[in-house]
Amino acid sequence: MTGLRRTRRYTDMDDAWKQKVRRVRSYTPGLQPVPDASLIKLNTNECPYPPSPKVAEALARFDAETLRLYPAPDADALTEALAHYHGVKKEQVFTGVGSDEVLALAFLTFFAGEGKEQRPVFFPDVTYSFYEVWAALYGIPYETKALREDFTIDPADYADAPGGVVIANPNAPTALAAPLSLIEEIVKKNPGTVVIIDEAYVDFGGETALPLLAKYDNLLVTRTFSKSRAMAGMRIGYAIGNEELIAHLKNTKFAFNSYTMSRVAIEAGCASLADEAYFRETVAKIKATRERLAKELSALGFTFPPSSANFLFVTHPRAEAKRLYEDLMKDKIYVRYFDAPRTKDYLRITVGTDKEADALLSFLRAYPALKE
Amino acid sequence: MTGLRRTRRYTDMDDAWKQKVRRVRSYTPGLQPVPDASLIKLNTNECPYPPSPKVAEALARFDAETLRLYPAPDADALTEALAHYHGVKKEQVFTGVGSDEVLALAFLTFFAGEGKEQRPVFFPDVTYSFYEVWAALYGIPYETKALREDFTIDPADYADAPGGVVIANPNAPTALAAPLSLIEEIVKKNPGTVVIIDEAYVDFGGETALPLLAKYDNLLVTRTFSKSRAMAGMRIGYAIGNEELIAHLKNTKFAFNSYTMSRVAIEAGCASLADEAYFRETVAKIKATRERLAKELSALGFTFPPSSANFLFVTHPRAEAKRLYEDLMKDKIYVRYFDAPRTKDYLRITVGTDKEADALLSFLRAYPALKE
Repeated sequence: MTGLRRTRRYTDMDDAWKQKVRRVRSYTPGLQPVPDASLIKLNTNECPYPPSPKVAEALARFDAETLRLYPAPDADALTEALAHYHGVKKEQVFTGVGSDEVLALAFLTFFAGEGKEQRPVFFPDVTYSFYEVWAALYGIPYETKALREDFTIDPADYADAPGGVVIANPNAPTALAAPLSLIEEIVKKNPGTVVIIDEAYVDFGGETALPLLAKYDNLLVTRTFSKSRAMAGMRIGYAIGNEELIAHLKNTKFAFNSYTMSRVAIEAGCASLADEAYFRETVAKIKATRERLAKELSALGFTFPPSSANFLFVTHPRAEAKRLYEDLMKDKIYVRYFDAPRTKDYLRITVGTDKEADALLSFLRAYPALKE
Repeated sequence: MTGLRRTRRYTDMDDAWKQKVRRVRSYTPGLQPVPDASLIKLNTNECPYPPSPKVAEALARFDAETLRLYPAPDADALTEALAHYHGVKKEQVFTGVGSDEVLALAFLTFFAGEGKEQRPVFFPDVTYSFYEVWAALYGIPYETKALREDFTIDPADYADAPGGVVIANPNAPTALAAPLSLIEEIVKKNPGTVVIIDEAYVDFGGETALPLLAKYDNLLVTRTFSKSRAMAGMRIGYAIGNEELIAHLKNTKFAFNSYTMSRVAIEAGCASLADEAYFRETVAKIKATRERLAKELSALGFTFPPSSANFLFVTHPRAEAKRLYEDLMKDKIYVRYFDAPRTKDYLRITVGTDKEADALLSFLRAYPALKE
């Protein structure tokens, strides 16, 4: 009978652990279908070109025997290469598993520090939707500030943000870049909190905030290898800030996971940084395709904010965006659709190769709703 | 004058952002000196043998062009291979950047869920010191339960743990394995909370708790590729539990970082799992060296709990542990020393190759303090 009672007791309490689970809102990444040569994937802002051949060489040369040893906890080789590349001190650089990990740890470090006294963090209403996911994950209060009708930022909205500010520049999904003067105004108006500028797309045309680091110690700039360096599959991101700020970020990382960057990621990242010519060539090709695609889409009646990124955020007066998104997918052309009040009439289209742009344009030219 | 005043105002508030920083205690990993052929590294429980040659083949064969694409967010290939390997469903497996990331996310998911009503988590006083770091990181209260004098666990200490339980089995740094019956008793006594069994070292001799998954839905078992699979540098860990529990863990992961496992890590991990013969041979070699080392250390007067791991936790009545640790380091033999009340008389020595064991034993045989 004891056995039975124990079983019952167990069953009765069966749900107790479930009630203790942290309920979180998850970020939904773009679909990652099984690779298929006939599929045109313009939905996650990946680079249409491979990484530098130096990355392939580094992988081919990689000594698998070294994998038995832990990597350098600070990913020194990569951190040093990034410091050299950007002309900053090694102590100003922090690396992570994609800029998503860097941002996740930065939110925890700079925005979740006050316990019961947490203060709201400000970011735009139309931006990278992971910001509100991270805020919710750590219980950080936040306020979204409405972008203007044309998706530009009103810097006055961000004065004296109680908990901090995070701005993607260029912004996603709008592709719009804010001028450095506007970013400086926001950083200057928030001496009491950390301002994070997420520069995932800066290489495609934005103005970097890195020069502001000389003047402001409350600025953190984040970057990624996933877009312009064609290494989304390798998971490398980084942040640059003043030494003290980076030291705090490192402390959090060392309270989370001692070793985040694998030996392979460190070597592959260094190889990419060592090939500036290839990097510039890749970016130039994407920008050229973007300008052509923009022109052709305009001719088809699409409108969009000027893009400083590797994607376009387009709308069309006669096409229902969600329907077009679904119809494109049926034709194996994947783009991104965000079903939210201010974005529901738009599609975010990654700039692919010229051939991919041609396929997209062919589809659109034949799409009934676009015909007048 | 306005400019000056503004500058002053900025300087006055300069420290405000610093006061909002989350102050954390960091885990201190073992020293990772620059590799050096003359150095004997027995301080971080790495495997002295390389990973399976199939891992080297997978890296050599890896198509760097695929790096331009994000990896599968669920690391499907690796998750499926692990499910097949352990005879569980794919939905019961969660992968992460080392078992440290898996544990960090599990603490956040299962132990930090209650907001202001957080309840203490129980773990032993002598165990993996990262547990209290993760608890502190998320503000989770915890109680350490003193191991018995011989470092064994008293299961009565863990009955009805309010917030959850985490047990390393085999334990670190003691190397002592608890029998499955004791683990089951703890899991059974905590139906209302999640019990995490950290099996980082189980391949070296512990009894796995995986069979208990059929009976208990509050159990999470974590594993790593860093020890028995010689892949510390690749950063692969995983957890196995019931589908619902794993789904919660995935939700947290998707609120932290969509893509944690790189394409390279996924392929390298699969390659390791596909070479069971090599894996068994490696583990057998380490166990053989461990037995020899244990015998020789006993002959020198060292005592230690019986080891079910790839390390020994040794003490000597005549040698001051900290002094011995330092003297070993001067001779380029790195072991680990934990300066805490119950561990200050011990050294944790990783089982290396036979040659490394010989070098260690030569040093110890000549060490003055050990002579009678």
